[in-house]
Amino acid sequence: MQRIINDPSMVVEDMLKGFAKVHDDIIHVDKENPRVVISNHAKDKKKVGIVTGGGSGHKPAFIGYCGKNMVDAVAVGEIFSSPTAKSFYDCIKAVDQGMGVACLYGNYAGDNMNVKMAMELAEDDDIEVKTVVANDDVASASKEDIKKRRGVAGEIFMWKVGGAKANMGASLDEVIAAAQKAIDNTRSVGVGLGPCTIPANGKPNFTIKEGTMEFGIGHHGEPGIKVEELASAKDMAKEMTSLVCDDIPFTAGDEVAVLVSGLGATPVMEQYIFYDEVEKELRDRGITVYKSYVGNYFTSLEMNGVTLTVMKLDDELKECIDMEVETMGLTQF
Amino acid sequence: MQRIINDPSMVVEDMLKGFAKVHDDIIHVDKENPRVVISNHAKDKKKVGIVTGGGSGHKPAFIGYCGKNMVDAVAVGEIFSSPTAKSFYDCIKAVDQGMGVACLYGNYAGDNMNVKMAMELAEDDDIEVKTVVANDDVASASKEDIKKRRGVAGEIFMWKVGGAKANMGASLDEVIAAAQKAIDNTRSVGVGLGPCTIPANGKPNFTIKEGTMEFGIGHHGEPGIKVEELASAKDMAKEMTSLVCDDIPFTAGDEVAVLVSGLGATPVMEQYIFYDEVEKELRDRGITVYKSYVGNYFTSLEMNGVTLTVMKLDDELKECIDMEVETMGLTQF
Repeated sequence: MQRIINDPSMVVEDMLKGFAKVHDDIIHVDKENPRVVISNHAKDKKKVGIVTGGGSGHKPAFIGYCGKNMVDAVAVGEIFSSPTAKSFYDCIKAVDQGMGVACLYGNYAGDNMNVKMAMELAEDDDIEVKTVVANDDVASASKEDIKKRRGVAGEIFMWKVGGAKANMGASLDEVIAAAQKAIDNTRSVGVGLGPCTIPANGKPNFTIKEGTMEFGIGHHGEPGIKVEELASAKDMAKEMTSLVCDDIPFTAGDEVAVLVSGLGATPVMEQYIFYDEVEKELRDRGITVYKSYVGNYFTSLEMNGVTLTVMKLDDELKECIDMEVETMGLTQF
Repeated sequence: MQRIINDPSMVVEDMLKGFAKVHDDIIHVDKENPRVVISNHAKDKKKVGIVTGGGSGHKPAFIGYCGKNMVDAVAVGEIFSSPTAKSFYDCIKAVDQGMGVACLYGNYAGDNMNVKMAMELAEDDDIEVKTVVANDDVASASKEDIKKRRGVAGEIFMWKVGGAKANMGASLDEVIAAAQKAIDNTRSVGVGLGPCTIPANGKPNFTIKEGTMEFGIGHHGEPGIKVEELASAKDMAKEMTSLVCDDIPFTAGDEVAVLVSGLGATPVMEQYIFYDEVEKELRDRGITVYKSYVGNYFTSLEMNGVTLTVMKLDDELKECIDMEVETMGLTQF
């Protein structure tokens, strides 16, 4: 295991120390609970609080989206494991200012359970909490079972929209409605070309044969739809764009935001090559890219591969997407 | 070769197409020469032009540092190969506004030769060009042979300082002096844990045995000082910080900027773990971190490993480092 770490069981602890040092202008770690990261701007003004959380190993997600006009507090889990209910609860308490808290997170069993428990604790404190559960991963369940789909990189759009809306002074219901619309309008799919290794395990948790790719792979290496021969960037983009666009469907005349993310070990050069093909595919369908993001936005340790996320825009979503943010993972001017 | 590409010999072409689409708010590709990337802000006001260039495969370097208040034009080479003299010359012509051009690049034989030829062409056009040649890689030659050292991630500080100074309205000599001071005050060292493959070659250009690391590796896989047993993040940080700090030397009371960069396939989590140890080492020496950067700032395709860059600051360098920039690779607010 070729890794730059100290103790494999302490990687999250050690990472958080470095993160807090580098980004002390944006965030701080809660004094009582070291698994809670809070934006320095969380209480700049009275507004709905935005909370998320999830397993570690997806950097910049989740703590990299904590900051001005985006997420106010993040509950931090172990590698690929849900944060505790206590951490979600501490996040909620930390950012509530009487207008309620929007908990915007991804559809995983552990997160669902722990958020639910945290909400019960918050209810005892008379804090109103509402949720949006991201389910943008097209490959993780059929359209009939859409509520079973997992949340992946589309969560970034959900946080961006929810955070912007809260910053505009919207009510909890308005924030929830906008974030729900963001995720309802968003579809993602991933392709895996190489596995990753959880440090405490020491061995890859799945394999991908040289010359093949796992189409529809999940963010923790969950099996995809099929294993197929490694395709060119063009063919990969064609297949992924089709799957994503046919699901909503996206149609000619639509304006979209596109996010291409490497999974950790994918050279950024390849991500731009892939994006170029995606944009051509979208253009061929009469779909216009309003805004695009290419880079390591939502990773899976050192997995090799790429994810495609597309969100259909309307005026409200555009206004939210355009709002400036200051976070480690996303900066916009 | 598990890659997301089309034709292995066209990766730079294809990457540039995607890059230009995503970042059209910051840069554009020159109409005449597709290997020249120009900042949209290059001629916002009359000032000294800032040019750089180098081989591809180091993303965000070099084109990712083209933009507001940093580099005005970048000559783009093939993977790990120098851009042509013509491309450097076209960059110089594109950004000269009568105040001259500072060409700030790294010490590699091909780049030295091609910049020299470009300067001769520019002389015929009466464009004044002066250079700073980055040589921050401590491991690439002894202190006695300091001029033989290669330029690595310290170039980012050189561009940041040179770009800021030009934006302040400084003369060519003042820009050159500041950029030279930046690189003279900067030292870097890298460690490799896994190799990379040039797409057109199809095979790794070197190997690193499991359980070992190449201490002092170059940005193209050039051999380091020694191969040793893979160390903990703490021991790695200790050895790298020592090498860097003892070279200038950096001493108690100094304020520094620190840049930790992954080499392409290194999880960002590990980079923060490494940074935390570096910061402790510096603190133990009485050195204060004024500003820190952690992420994939200067990579080598999908090489696994990390580089450490430290710049000693004075008031002039601080003012330059603090200036806001808008580029793909570095955004500062």
